[in-house]
Amino acid sequence: MTERKEFRDLAEPEAAREAIASLDLSPEPESVPLTDARGRVLAERVDAGIDVPGFDRASMDGYAVRARDTFGADEADPVELELAGAVHAGEAPEVTVDPGTCAEVSTGAVMPDGADAVVMVERTDERPAEGSEPGGNAGGDGTGDRPDRIAFRTSVAPGDHVMAAGADIAAGARALGPGTRLTPREIGLLSALGVEEVPVRGRPTVGIVSTGDELVRPGDDLDPSRGEIYDVNSTTIAAGVTEAGGEPVLYPHAGDDYAEMERLLREAADECDLVLSSGSTSASAVDVIYRVIEERGDLLLHGVAVKPGKPMLIGRLDRADGGESAYVGLPGYPVSALTIFRTFVAPAIREAAGLPEPRTATVEGRMAVRERYAEGRLRLMPVGLLDLGDGGAADGRNADEAAADGPAADGPADDPDRPLVYPVDKGSGATTSLVEADGVVAVDPDTEYLEAGEPVTVRLFSPDVRPPTLLGVGEDDPAVNRLLDRLANPRYLPVGSREGYRRLRDGVPDVAVVAGPTDRDVDDAVLGEWDREWGLVVPAGNPEGVEGLADLVDRDLRFVNRPTGTGLRRSLDDAVADLADERSAARADLIERIDGYGLTLRAFESPVRRVLAGDADAGVGLRETAERLGCAFVPLGDQRVAVRAAADRVDREAVASLAAELDDGIADLVRGLAGYSA
Amino acid sequence: MTERKEFRDLAEPEAAREAIASLDLSPEPESVPLTDARGRVLAERVDAGIDVPGFDRASMDGYAVRARDTFGADEADPVELELAGAVHAGEAPEVTVDPGTCAEVSTGAVMPDGADAVVMVERTDERPAEGSEPGGNAGGDGTGDRPDRIAFRTSVAPGDHVMAAGADIAAGARALGPGTRLTPREIGLLSALGVEEVPVRGRPTVGIVSTGDELVRPGDDLDPSRGEIYDVNSTTIAAGVTEAGGEPVLYPHAGDDYAEMERLLREAADECDLVLSSGSTSASAVDVIYRVIEERGDLLLHGVAVKPGKPMLIGRLDRADGGESAYVGLPGYPVSALTIFRTFVAPAIREAAGLPEPRTATVEGRMAVRERYAEGRLRLMPVGLLDLGDGGAADGRNADEAAADGPAADGPADDPDRPLVYPVDKGSGATTSLVEADGVVAVDPDTEYLEAGEPVTVRLFSPDVRPPTLLGVGEDDPAVNRLLDRLANPRYLPVGSREGYRRLRDGVPDVAVVAGPTDRDVDDAVLGEWDREWGLVVPAGNPEGVEGLADLVDRDLRFVNRPTGTGLRRSLDDAVADLADERSAARADLIERIDGYGLTLRAFESPVRRVLAGDADAGVGLRETAERLGCAFVPLGDQRVAVRAAADRVDREAVASLAAELDDGIADLVRGLAGYSA
Repeated sequence: MTERKEFRDLAEPEAAREAIASLDLSPEPESVPLTDARGRVLAERVDAGIDVPGFDRASMDGYAVRARDTFGADEADPVELELAGAVHAGEAPEVTVDPGTCAEVSTGAVMPDGADAVVMVERTDERPAEGSEPGGNAGGDGTGDRPDRIAFRTSVAPGDHVMAAGADIAAGARALGPGTRLTPREIGLLSALGVEEVPVRGRPTVGIVSTGDELVRPGDDLDPSRGEIYDVNSTTIAAGVTEAGGEPVLYPHAGDDYAEMERLLREAADECDLVLSSGSTSASAVDVIYRVIEERGDLLLHGVAVKPGKPMLIGRLDRADGGESAYVGLPGYPVSALTIFRTFVAPAIREAAGLPEPRTATVEGRMAVRERYAEGRLRLMPVGLLDLGDGGAADGRNADEAAADGPAADGPADDPDRPLVYPVDKGSGATTSLVEADGVVAVDPDTEYLEAGEPVTVRLFSPDVRPPTLLGVGEDDPAVNRLLDRLANPRYLPVGSREGYRRLRDGVPDVAVVAGPTDRDVDDAVLGEWDREWGLVVPAGNPEGVEGLADLVDRDLRFVNRPTGTGLRRSLDDAVADLADERSAARADLIERIDGYGLTLRAFESPVRRVLAGDADAGVGLRETAERLGCAFVPLGDQRVAVRAAADRVDREAVASLAAELDDGIADLVRGLAGYSA
Repeated sequence: MTERKEFRDLAEPEAAREAIASLDLSPEPESVPLTDARGRVLAERVDAGIDVPGFDRASMDGYAVRARDTFGADEADPVELELAGAVHAGEAPEVTVDPGTCAEVSTGAVMPDGADAVVMVERTDERPAEGSEPGGNAGGDGTGDRPDRIAFRTSVAPGDHVMAAGADIAAGARALGPGTRLTPREIGLLSALGVEEVPVRGRPTVGIVSTGDELVRPGDDLDPSRGEIYDVNSTTIAAGVTEAGGEPVLYPHAGDDYAEMERLLREAADECDLVLSSGSTSASAVDVIYRVIEERGDLLLHGVAVKPGKPMLIGRLDRADGGESAYVGLPGYPVSALTIFRTFVAPAIREAAGLPEPRTATVEGRMAVRERYAEGRLRLMPVGLLDLGDGGAADGRNADEAAADGPAADGPADDPDRPLVYPVDKGSGATTSLVEADGVVAVDPDTEYLEAGEPVTVRLFSPDVRPPTLLGVGEDDPAVNRLLDRLANPRYLPVGSREGYRRLRDGVPDVAVVAGPTDRDVDDAVLGEWDREWGLVVPAGNPEGVEGLADLVDRDLRFVNRPTGTGLRRSLDDAVADLADERSAARADLIERIDGYGLTLRAFESPVRRVLAGDADAGVGLRETAERLGCAFVPLGDQRVAVRAAADRVDREAVASLAAELDDGIADLVRGLAGYSA
């Protein structure tokens, strides 16, 4: 089969870039109203169609004159001119300045015909009308009788104190060049020119086709018993298309009906500049795409030497009208799909839209840990970031400033202002990796390892991604969730107490939340602690009459546990050990007799939800969760939860904010949480 | 009057910031469909409402078993279980795994009831149904007869090769915190959770009221003879509001009808979180705003010690419903209005919208020239930028990289990678300053001067502003306009040949376009040159029968000129000198006899347009312009136009691109331009 042959011969990533660059995604230019033009890109040069200002404009209060009439005038020998009338700002002049005459003007007034200069009022005197009192000068407030004649104590040259029509910008002058991104100031200039419709580059239309019977659109009902999952890629990629300056079009799910999938692909090709499909894992869906491209299109490339994204497909689809649409097939796992989209496809969409790569799309970081690598192909490694430079990007200081504060680039390995970069290796199938990783680091095929401290460039998943200011790890706990809500831009990985404490020791996170006893000895500081009541969660009314741990051992009850490494499990293990001591039995034997002791669930609520669903008779959990979700609770003890900060991070601004929250209000933090005490 | 009193006592800029911070612009949170949520900010924490995956999922191809049934199995002593059925991905299981049985599963399949682990197919053997051939193992392709029994050559623990429901994210777990900006990846996670409506921070509604009879909305007809101009501020500020995360509402022009203005202000206050008015220059408009605020509102501050923006007003407007709206009065000149908006108002809108200051909103630069300053109040100086670091922000390299390449921050005065910063001092009334300046530098009241090379922070007018890669200055010329269209992100200031050459000598621009003879001696390189025919432009058919310069001197013709310093004027001056020599007359006497010799217009087309409009009998101009606009032309000569680059900029990428354009095609550049020759 075609794909097998081509798969053996993986293309280099550069070839994939070139293949995509060879596709024409550029739509026709279009015209948009000025009010919708912000963020768009000019398709062609805009020349001024009118003069700004559109009239010769007096730029002082005074008198409009023919300059020649003032020649020779000075303080000793003023020239007198007849006052023919007045023009104020916003009026059409009703007066003409003939030789020997002048007209009163205010700033902003249209210069009357005949006049070519303005004499400022301070250099003039009114000569009273016949029969009036002889007057002082100036003011010319227009409220009194108008004088007949004005005396000028200075001469002016043509153009003096006149802003000529077009002096700001003249009709015919080049105003804005093609390719200009329209920000508020360009909108302002176009307004001044009276432009109502703006010729802009079109936004490439990007069709998104997703395949797979198991996919359900968010908002629709999900039937997990049939193995259904929500469609993540369509909405993620659609948001990425918009961000890159394209217009996404979501096509309905093709399911696994191949005729329908073929029809949708052809429809999308007819309607869009680019068609993306996010890979069905089923080989047969790939076959359909192949068939469509081979029958009516061109396959440019299949299979790229990159991890993830090896099965990337690049080609062209013929349109019914004789044109063609570009096609790229993305991997199926969400992080892989977004990575390949961001690396290969988004730049092509931006290029077609005329938009530059955003300056914030990459961040220079340094590896927090050593990372081995030897896969022989380009690896786009998902990574998380932690910005240790307090006041870094996340609180408004820009990247330039952050960089400017740091040492020079030739000693970046220990540059403390570069954010820490750590691999996120949850497996690309996990959607939570989407938010636990901030971007990807491209690791060359011939790189064996990245050293801790080594400078790396992180391509962020979005130019709007901001590295978190605080990284916490450890126990899953409802009070911790509340605490996080009070902080600006934290990240918390609920990896359990043991793993959290290990990571704190290894130096990446700022804080670890540790529940229950700890053995390790880490150089840390306890920022705050509280107690929580734990035990067995059983169905409402405790129908099996569970009274304690012994019931799990002695009776045929289905139990559900938390993973080793969580504080809850640690305390439960200790309680089992105590029971074993009491009975002089082996701990392992007791455990062996508990059905489901090894069946562990990831989040602290999960065992409770199993019990609620009737799939377990008892689960380990918190009184808080049991009461909140309406279960009964058999208490086994209290356990201490401590927020521990790495000693060398205590002075960080974000850690200090966390400490301040804890100083101020652990009582407030645990208020209303059943079984919690400060 | 109130304003006079308060004006004497100008507030410090910090007090203005505090006054604006004291206003409550925050709208209520709202709910938006997931597909519209990109770029918005979560109003509250989102916990997972469902488990992801929503079912226990086989993560290998193999057999679902009760783990206990496999205990003790190994290669030497396999365990046999009865095959009860099969489950494939995307199906609801129709089989239950009772003790002693197993079910075939494929990756992604829902685990059947009873089973708690998967044994991978490679560690199993099929036992043929009674009467069948004894079979090999594996495959389990389901196409042949189904075997009766499966032999397991390994034991598994509960949970092995099963991704438990919620293992990616569990129901009840904290998914995203309040204040999270929704980028594609967060959209992805929300999709996985099936979230259809997202609780987000509201966008502050910002009403924009503009005053002044002379203002006309872009697209409407303009009557310059009445002194009308297009309204620049409303559209500029509206675009700025959108950019800052607000929703602008444009109110119709209030004109100078004060009752109407009052009605509009109250309507805007009722409907908006913030009302902005961009200052009418008329003192009486300010009076109306005062009266409205004093009658129904609070005036917090009037007059700030900042240039521009001194007359800024900050207050509150009562609403009919008992609430209140914030009010800020902006200056009237476009650059001043945008500067005050960007410095004081946009941060408040972003804060209310929950958005951080964009990282690209400021740039660290260095002064290109010495700038004196001693005004005693904060100056927000409009500046242009020139990014000399080739490959800087403008071609995709981000600010971090640019900064990382440069030397350390403690030697920034001569840091060649900081963009050059030069003041733009066209007067804040000029709308072209909007696009000739990129942002503002805040200069402290006690700063006497900024040295050339001094590091400064430039607040860009928009985070999307990109400093130009090339700065050109000099003569206005249609071939230059064509040339500029072929370059990426250039800036060209048509200041005339003389001023352009002066600036080239002073070291700010990269290139100067010089037409006609030059006296100066600058260290430069000519990148390309062409000739253009210049002369007198007269009405079509040359009704006055103008034959040359002598007609202007000897007859009563209205002439219109270009400014001294332009190449056209320089050549005209030389021609007048030649005529004076011929006649043995004084040059000044001849000039004196030309009506309008001193009346100069800014753009090269402007004299021609004056002639076209019937306001002049002749103007200096190019054959190109005369022919294009349908005038007759009286040739006076050819003049050389040279594109000259500063010697120390010749190697810059942007200058090299320009040189390449000229090398390739001056003939192409001037093709079709009447009177031009390469």
